[in-house]
Amino acid sequence: MPGQRRRCIIVNSVESEDPAEIANIPPEFLNILKISRTPPHILELEISCRKEGREVFIPFSFLEKYYEVYGKLTKNKGHEQFEWSHSYSKVFKPTTRYNSSGMFMYFSNYNVEVRDRVKCISATEGVPVSTQWEASGYYYPVQVAQYGLSHYSKNLSDRPPKRKILEDGNLVTAKWQVPEGASVKRKYDSEKFTHVLEFNSYDSAGISLKLRQGIDLVLSFDLRFLSMNGSLTIFLEDRDRSTIFPISFVCSPVLIHVLNSSGSYSTNYGLGSCQNWNQLTRDLHVDLVKGHVLSGRGKKLSKTKLRIHHLLVKGHGQLDNLTLASSNHMGMFYSSADWLVRHQDSSGGWPIGVKRKIASGKADLDPGWYSAMGQGQAMSLLIRAYYRSGKSHYLEAALKGMKPFSKSSTEGGVRAYFMNQYPWYEEYPTVPPSFVLNGFIYSLIGLYDVLSLAPHDQVGDAQLLFDQGMHSLKKLLPLFDTGSGTVYDLRHFTLGLAPNIARWDYHSTHINQLLLLSTIDSDPILTTVAGRWISYMSGKRAAHN
Amino acid sequence: MPGQRRRCIIVNSVESEDPAEIANIPPEFLNILKISRTPPHILELEISCRKEGREVFIPFSFLEKYYEVYGKLTKNKGHEQFEWSHSYSKVFKPTTRYNSSGMFMYFSNYNVEVRDRVKCISATEGVPVSTQWEASGYYYPVQVAQYGLSHYSKNLSDRPPKRKILEDGNLVTAKWQVPEGASVKRKYDSEKFTHVLEFNSYDSAGISLKLRQGIDLVLSFDLRFLSMNGSLTIFLEDRDRSTIFPISFVCSPVLIHVLNSSGSYSTNYGLGSCQNWNQLTRDLHVDLVKGHVLSGRGKKLSKTKLRIHHLLVKGHGQLDNLTLASSNHMGMFYSSADWLVRHQDSSGGWPIGVKRKIASGKADLDPGWYSAMGQGQAMSLLIRAYYRSGKSHYLEAALKGMKPFSKSSTEGGVRAYFMNQYPWYEEYPTVPPSFVLNGFIYSLIGLYDVLSLAPHDQVGDAQLLFDQGMHSLKKLLPLFDTGSGTVYDLRHFTLGLAPNIARWDYHSTHINQLLLLSTIDSDPILTTVAGRWISYMSGKRAAHN
Repeated sequence: MPGQRRRCIIVNSVESEDPAEIANIPPEFLNILKISRTPPHILELEISCRKEGREVFIPFSFLEKYYEVYGKLTKNKGHEQFEWSHSYSKVFKPTTRYNSSGMFMYFSNYNVEVRDRVKCISATEGVPVSTQWEASGYYYPVQVAQYGLSHYSKNLSDRPPKRKILEDGNLVTAKWQVPEGASVKRKYDSEKFTHVLEFNSYDSAGISLKLRQGIDLVLSFDLRFLSMNGSLTIFLEDRDRSTIFPISFVCSPVLIHVLNSSGSYSTNYGLGSCQNWNQLTRDLHVDLVKGHVLSGRGKKLSKTKLRIHHLLVKGHGQLDNLTLASSNHMGMFYSSADWLVRHQDSSGGWPIGVKRKIASGKADLDPGWYSAMGQGQAMSLLIRAYYRSGKSHYLEAALKGMKPFSKSSTEGGVRAYFMNQYPWYEEYPTVPPSFVLNGFIYSLIGLYDVLSLAPHDQVGDAQLLFDQGMHSLKKLLPLFDTGSGTVYDLRHFTLGLAPNIARWDYHSTHINQLLLLSTIDSDPILTTVAGRWISYMSGKRAAHN
Repeated sequence: MPGQRRRCIIVNSVESEDPAEIANIPPEFLNILKISRTPPHILELEISCRKEGREVFIPFSFLEKYYEVYGKLTKNKGHEQFEWSHSYSKVFKPTTRYNSSGMFMYFSNYNVEVRDRVKCISATEGVPVSTQWEASGYYYPVQVAQYGLSHYSKNLSDRPPKRKILEDGNLVTAKWQVPEGASVKRKYDSEKFTHVLEFNSYDSAGISLKLRQGIDLVLSFDLRFLSMNGSLTIFLEDRDRSTIFPISFVCSPVLIHVLNSSGSYSTNYGLGSCQNWNQLTRDLHVDLVKGHVLSGRGKKLSKTKLRIHHLLVKGHGQLDNLTLASSNHMGMFYSSADWLVRHQDSSGGWPIGVKRKIASGKADLDPGWYSAMGQGQAMSLLIRAYYRSGKSHYLEAALKGMKPFSKSSTEGGVRAYFMNQYPWYEEYPTVPPSFVLNGFIYSLIGLYDVLSLAPHDQVGDAQLLFDQGMHSLKKLLPLFDTGSGTVYDLRHFTLGLAPNIARWDYHSTHINQLLLLSTIDSDPILTTVAGRWISYMSGKRAAHN
């Protein structure tokens, strides 16, 4: 008799009457929860199951939440089948030895700027603004570095970009439509040592440039205004809805602002002090999406449906190197590198201006803290900028970035010790230490990149810091192994809390980092542990005695 | 359409082609395993499931092994239901403060002597003989102490025993059936300062004593032989099969021997040097079962079906204090205490005479090692023997038992350090240390018992050793927490292996030990951790980030 209906009762001895405290019961099952009056409180959870002969069948909708396992019905050669898996994450097996001048891990897959916690790409700084820990927005060195490293990697993985210079004030000139009373002229600029386009719209509606419709949406230009206000606006067209979306770069301190009144809709990015030359590289799709999100239109906006319609300048200003391209990864990479050079302080750190709360009130970090991960990722990026550009100020910044590694986390540095013996570079230099694994390894990779690409006579403590860190890593690695996954940090040990289990994407990050290190360090513990941790992702568990 | 048949495919990315290496696939499912040729090897495990609408039902026979969850069909108010649970183990919530002179934890539930790894209760020593790590059998101090502590606890939990003295050579005399030529007489024994029964069977078939059929099966007696051989045999009757099983105590060095030839079946226990007075306390049911196991008859033998039929002595010897009782827990308790006093060495340790292999060749222990758990359990037992008897040699042995706690495990002691800072008393004093949790806590309880019951001016280092141990325990406890269970030890950290997950009965032992300590130490970490570990037993897991 197939599919005979039966009650499935899950009986657990539990210590609390608070349903949230009970096992891992999916909320939708809680309404039919019964708990016995007397302790130990017996939980009875009733779910509908099936019975055939001696076999009992349990509904996956319950198992899915109870065990956090993933399943989906698929077709295979016409047959419907149910696929089940444990982890949604991906492991990238390195095929070659890690190369400090090459792609950074698998960051070519990253799209930092489209993340929800990125408010927008600042028009004054050219780097992402984070809202993760402070809604008003702030520059997060880790995110800035990852933005740059992802574009450095994309530049190596993607095909070369299509680039078209539209106007350089000299060899290439565009056909500007100059209304009555307005003017454009090319002239030599004594500051840039090159010819630029000078425009003045006076009282007109502005000077426009019709652009041949194309799919390329990355626009670069150098811009400054000689008047107190002015703007450069790009008009994007959504073919389907045949609507026009203007994106303006304006003389304003406001990061991003969406005008949305009586039919007129526009996304404005503030240039800050617009009287100085601003060198901008903009992904117009991203710029538009961030405005849409801000105005509540949501982030659904297909890049392929967007076309540039025309461009309009207003006020009195100068424009140069107006370039449209399919991508400009190196431009974005150098924007990050330059931001890091500009914002490194005298201690070599990139201070983080927001309070970081760890474990509800315990071991908070006050604004101004450094992150070993931020330092390391910045070093990985800056040393690549030095390698590609040969410019020594990138090298100097990368070397200076090591300074907080030698300073204790109790004194504003990032160096902590496990049991006063094993040095650890803290992603979050809390007191007591939190020993975050992935941030520590990123800091080791940063040290390794400096070691690999900086002139040998200038690497300073890099070798010592890297070797000490690797020694600590190999010794403490087993403490992150739960037998079915990994912990994100050791706060359970330092703060006496429940273990902070790493979700699958952090677990796979741990694995990918170990696999990278295993290409530069032959110690078998790296591959052994990585192999065991990979097996956890397919449901394997360490044996019990 | 109910119960529509569907294939359920479990798809995992796995790193090995060895099925054993793959997830936790129950062996019976392995035959229908498909693995793709090219890495990453895709495992396809086909199991039969059911589908109704959007719901998929998974067979429990698979889940049971895959997740190690327990389930059984039961009746509840006439309805058939399926009960599911995670742990087969039990937590004992203490209701009062732990009392060192009271029951030891929940040991009143223990039946050490019936365990498979107990070969038998030695007739020369009166304590269990273990075969756990050496088939030939050896005395394992931990087991001897647990045997004694369980009977001490049973004596407090059970109702007082029924006791009947059958023969004391003086006030109580039995009706012995003395055949032609044989003799019995009562006479004063200058060694025992009491009257005893002297018997001599000469060439007869032996002197027998018919016993009134009763259910009491614990026999005590003092026995020595004046001839070079002789025996005391108890004839047990299995009512159902109406067969007779003799159990003989004979002049022989052989621990246990089963005669099983041409219709005659008998279980013999060797008295060793039978010319000295032997004081025996025997559970005849256990004595018979151990013989049955040895002779391949299996251990199924219901106690309630056994009756004593009669008793027979042969040879020339003396008998005293022949007593039949429903139980004699204190007799068995003192057998253990006396064994521990006899076998303690000059360093205060109870050396363990077998090699202990830990983690395949790594950190083995050679014969002669001490166990902090053995020392602690022996101290818990001996100090109770002192408390009950007032005899100072029990106290002295308990105090001497502390000596190995101050000696390093690298020098034959049991004291190790975690990271050279936190002292730990090692159940298995391996190099490097293994940091077994339950054995450590048992050693702390032993120290506490000595502190509680020994005269204050004699406790020596007990307070210091206990306080240091509790400090280490509270600090290192989180390292045993996997977020869904506990690890048995820290070998993964010291030997760089996979975590050694504690099976549920060890996990519940950890909890029960913490709950005991929480009644004598108010530090909230003990109850907090115990509470979290209890919740793991009902399937709860620590949160992931």
